[in-house]
Amino acid sequence: MVSIILVSHSRKITDGLKEMIEEMVDSTGDVRIFSAGGTEDGRLGTDSVAIYNIIKQSSQHSNILIFADIGSAILSTETAIDLIEDEELKSKVILVDAPLVEGAFYASIQAMVDKDVEGILAELQNI
Amino acid sequence: MVSIILVSHSRKITDGLKEMIEEMVDSTGDVRIFSAGGTEDGRLGTDSVAIYNIIKQSSQHSNILIFADIGSAILSTETAIDLIEDEELKSKVILVDAPLVEGAFYASIQAMVDKDVEGILAELQNI
Repeated sequence: MVSIILVSHSRKITDGLKEMIEEMVDSTGDVRIFSAGGTEDGRLGTDSVAIYNIIKQSSQHSNILIFADIGSAILSTETAIDLIEDEELKSKVILVDAPLVEGAFYASIQAMVDKDVEGILAELQNI
Repeated sequence: MVSIILVSHSRKITDGLKEMIEEMVDSTGDVRIFSAGGTEDGRLGTDSVAIYNIIKQSSQHSNILIFADIGSAILSTETAIDLIEDEELKSKVILVDAPLVEGAFYASIQAMVDKDVEGILAELQNI
């Protein structure tokens, strides 16, 4: 099971992206998508603790791929990763260097057919 | 005045991105952002005619930059551009080869300080 966590300042962007991906992939299967955009109360902004909590929820998954869009969404994700004390969990988390929408979409499609995280990341080189 | 048109299968994505950009740029100024995601009735999909109508609305603007995310959003944009009969208007339209969220965001920021479309597109090489 692969977790894909979507991070943006906008909750609408990550909710819409989750819907778009789930139309293509079976999210009850091997890929689970999480929308982590916006602040806790739905304003524009980011929330490191929310991202951290989703990572913890995903601790049983084999890999946790995070896609973030711009500057402070990336910084908040890095802060969330720094909060992880469990080294085994931390080693499963990758902040992917790819565009948010296109990267998360193609990674999700690839994760349906490829159980290997290196294969998923290699596919992203082609977008 | 530069028009920036956002195209995705998801209206939530393009509405959220428009909000996020407008928090940063003064959209009453030199940059105007248009959300053209989803179908006419708000489902997941794309709508070439809606994109075409926004291009026509922008005919007085000096440049019209379109950002689209994946496969058929790009195809629908190309169809919309093919519908334009006015060659002068058509020559103002650029379907930008850049990621939707990151590309439109940085192009909008750059368009506030750079009136030259080549300067805006050059800035996108750095993302």
